[in-house]
Amino acid sequence: MVLTGDRPTGALHLGHYAGSLKSRLALQDTHDQTLLVADTQALTDNADDPDKVRRNVLEVVLDYLAVGIDPTRTTIALQSALPALAELTLLYMNFVTVARLERNPTIKEEIQARGFGRDIPAGFLCYPVSQAADITAFRAGVVPVGEDQAPLIEQTNEIVRRINRQAGRPVLTEAQALIPTMGRLPGADGKSKMSKSQGNAIPLSASPEQIQAAVRGMYTDPGHLRAADPGRVEGNVVFTYLDAFDEDHTEVERLKAAYRAGGLGDMVVKRRLDETLQALLAPIRERRAQLARHPDYLLEVLRQGTERARAVTQLTLDEVRAGLGLFSLFSASR
Amino acid sequence: MVLTGDRPTGALHLGHYAGSLKSRLALQDTHDQTLLVADTQALTDNADDPDKVRRNVLEVVLDYLAVGIDPTRTTIALQSALPALAELTLLYMNFVTVARLERNPTIKEEIQARGFGRDIPAGFLCYPVSQAADITAFRAGVVPVGEDQAPLIEQTNEIVRRINRQAGRPVLTEAQALIPTMGRLPGADGKSKMSKSQGNAIPLSASPEQIQAAVRGMYTDPGHLRAADPGRVEGNVVFTYLDAFDEDHTEVERLKAAYRAGGLGDMVVKRRLDETLQALLAPIRERRAQLARHPDYLLEVLRQGTERARAVTQLTLDEVRAGLGLFSLFSASR
Repeated sequence: MVLTGDRPTGALHLGHYAGSLKSRLALQDTHDQTLLVADTQALTDNADDPDKVRRNVLEVVLDYLAVGIDPTRTTIALQSALPALAELTLLYMNFVTVARLERNPTIKEEIQARGFGRDIPAGFLCYPVSQAADITAFRAGVVPVGEDQAPLIEQTNEIVRRINRQAGRPVLTEAQALIPTMGRLPGADGKSKMSKSQGNAIPLSASPEQIQAAVRGMYTDPGHLRAADPGRVEGNVVFTYLDAFDEDHTEVERLKAAYRAGGLGDMVVKRRLDETLQALLAPIRERRAQLARHPDYLLEVLRQGTERARAVTQLTLDEVRAGLGLFSLFSASR
Repeated sequence: MVLTGDRPTGALHLGHYAGSLKSRLALQDTHDQTLLVADTQALTDNADDPDKVRRNVLEVVLDYLAVGIDPTRTTIALQSALPALAELTLLYMNFVTVARLERNPTIKEEIQARGFGRDIPAGFLCYPVSQAADITAFRAGVVPVGEDQAPLIEQTNEIVRRINRQAGRPVLTEAQALIPTMGRLPGADGKSKMSKSQGNAIPLSASPEQIQAAVRGMYTDPGHLRAADPGRVEGNVVFTYLDAFDEDHTEVERLKAAYRAGGLGDMVVKRRLDETLQALLAPIRERRAQLARHPDYLLEVLRQGTERARAVTQLTLDEVRAGLGLFSLFSASR
């Protein structure tokens, strides 16, 4: 079982496509896959705007289906509709110290990035525990994550070992991080990663004009003033995007060499990237628009996936409770 | 609605009787009352001994019924069988900062008492949030608590106000602490409060011989060496217990005066206390022994109470989720 997911805080964009959606399309051919729309986790740093989280739940489902996620092969589930995840989180919280959570490098960085300081919400500090509940509840053996998220898998496995030690038998199994070979896609401005909040993202639903404008304004090599000058390919966002999205790697390498040597203008390279992105996003945009006219279908996809996920996660909760020897008031299948 | 409860970590004792069980007997005549067997909360500082918690669940139910709690008038529910409480806890955790939890004086004291230091489990730090979930889920207007627990009600009401502000309307109502006029019953050794872990407790199931031995060894006035000497009543555990359990207050006051004046021996006062406690505990012990022969009945009482509590707590969760505008995938009654 492979588990991934997204916080529903905005429409998905090209960064998501390159970083995860593309590999999920491949994984659904070879693996039992679950995508979790992580609305509970989204609230840990959006408690003052739950509206945004609600509005984006179906947007994310729409993005999944538009890129080609097939709900008959991939389970799409809503985190907040899986009570077993909340119960497992509370259970696991007894096996993790506050000091350990504060040492988590991912949490440390995100606390800084979000400017929480000492006023970090308890839910945010504990979200690695919530994530451990997700991963273990689905018995996910493989978890594709960004490199910066690897410590979260380590935290999960510490909890797995702690629970198994307490139970005296392997109730839970450890998970492995699957770190993608490609790093994070930079934003169109070349600054940090692509992110809606940075205003440097190209959404999957971008119109042809939006794509064109984004490519036209894209960061290249500021020292490359005339086409005849030699230009830098490293840190040049247009080439980074061509590497990520242009299937014709030979042609991309040829363009890089010409750019480095001098004589190749930015406009030529940008035109190629524009054509590549237009070709990639046109069918996605079209499917997205078509599906958006059928919200009942989206709801039904999410409901059916969530029902399946309920059974799986409830079973794990029952097994963990039995393993720890907790009181069982109703038959285990309740 | 009045909500109280006990962590199932040991059999209940005279301290519980004087401090809470007695007033619960009165409350069930006048109020809608719920008693929560708080096994989830018990795990926050007993994660290494879940067995103890499980074994004591039915012991606590047994104690309730033995003292006269009537399950047709008082709802007895098992905390871990109420998933809505876990879901509310996780939700509320987003509205409380870690700094705020660390400032809670009850938590501060208990961290010291339990010697957790920096290695406090996350679940323990967050148990006031879990308690806020209990109180609000049952819409408890009145919460009888010891004086040292009053800050937990304040924490609950802060969460109530925060949720209501976010929702833009009064989704939840504030609770009031009901602090008993009588302080905590001291242990038989006169040291701190009565507690099983201190070995100074008289359990409700104590045999006549146990009661007699406990009273005989009870702490009085160490300066009162001869019956003829004047003795101190303050801090004298025998008199504290007579105040708590002897219905004939006039006679108790007369004995106090005689003890203070000199001429009244410890043995006389202890004999009176022994008779009082024997008369109080004999029928409780008898009912307890009788009920203990019917574990199926105890389970059924707990099941029925928990079913009722499930409906109430799930309704509150649905209302809070609707108030915050969270995504509703299934109809609200799910």
